[in-house]
Amino acid sequence: MIKVSALYPNGPGSRFDMTYYLTKHMPMVQQKLGSALKGSAVEGGLSGGQPGSPPTFVAMGHLLFDTVESFQHAFGPHAEAILGDIPNFTNTQPTVQVSEVKL
Amino acid sequence: MIKVSALYPNGPGSRFDMTYYLTKHMPMVQQKLGSALKGSAVEGGLSGGQPGSPPTFVAMGHLLFDTVESFQHAFGPHAEAILGDIPNFTNTQPTVQVSEVKL
Repeated sequence: MIKVSALYPNGPGSRFDMTYYLTKHMPMVQQKLGSALKGSAVEGGLSGGQPGSPPTFVAMGHLLFDTVESFQHAFGPHAEAILGDIPNFTNTQPTVQVSEVKL
Repeated sequence: MIKVSALYPNGPGSRFDMTYYLTKHMPMVQQKLGSALKGSAVEGGLSGGQPGSPPTFVAMGHLLFDTVESFQHAFGPHAEAILGDIPNFTNTQPTVQVSEVKL
C-alpha cells in the first residue's frame, strides 16, 4: 500500500478553507480517482510538538493506493482538475510526498 | 481524535534505520503509552509528487490519541526514554506536529 500526502505549509498569511476541503475538494478527488483509491484521510494542524507552538502544516490530506502505478494511472487523467482546485481552498503550495505504508 | 506525527527530513547524509524503527522503537513507544494510544502508523518515503524526485521526508510515524490532554498525560512521563531512543535509528531531527483528525 502507498500513501500520497499533500502537506499544506503553515505561515503568516496562510489561508486554508477546511470546510471547502472536506465538503468539495475531497469528494471531487474521491469521485475522480474511483476504485483505485483505497482510503483517504484529512488532518488540521493544531500545534508543533510543544503545546502552543505553531503547527508546521496548516492541513494534511492523504490518499491510499495499492501501488505507485495505480496512483499514477488514476491521477494522471484528472491531475489538471484536481490541482486546479487548490486555489479554491488555499493560497499555499502543498509539499507532496509518496510513501510506502510500513505499519 | 488527534494525531501526533514525527516527520523525519530527507537530505544528503540522512540516515534512518527502518528495521530498528519498526521492531524496536515503535513497540517500545506503544508499550510505554499503553491504552492512551489508539493507533499507530509508519511510512517510508518513496518520492516527491513527481516520479523519481526525492521524498521530503525519509520516514513518518504517527500516533493517535483521543485528545491532546491524553497524549500529554501519556507521553510526559516517558518523553526522555522515547526521545532518547531517536539517535538509535536516525541522525535527523523530526518535525513534530499535533493535528486534529478531520476525516
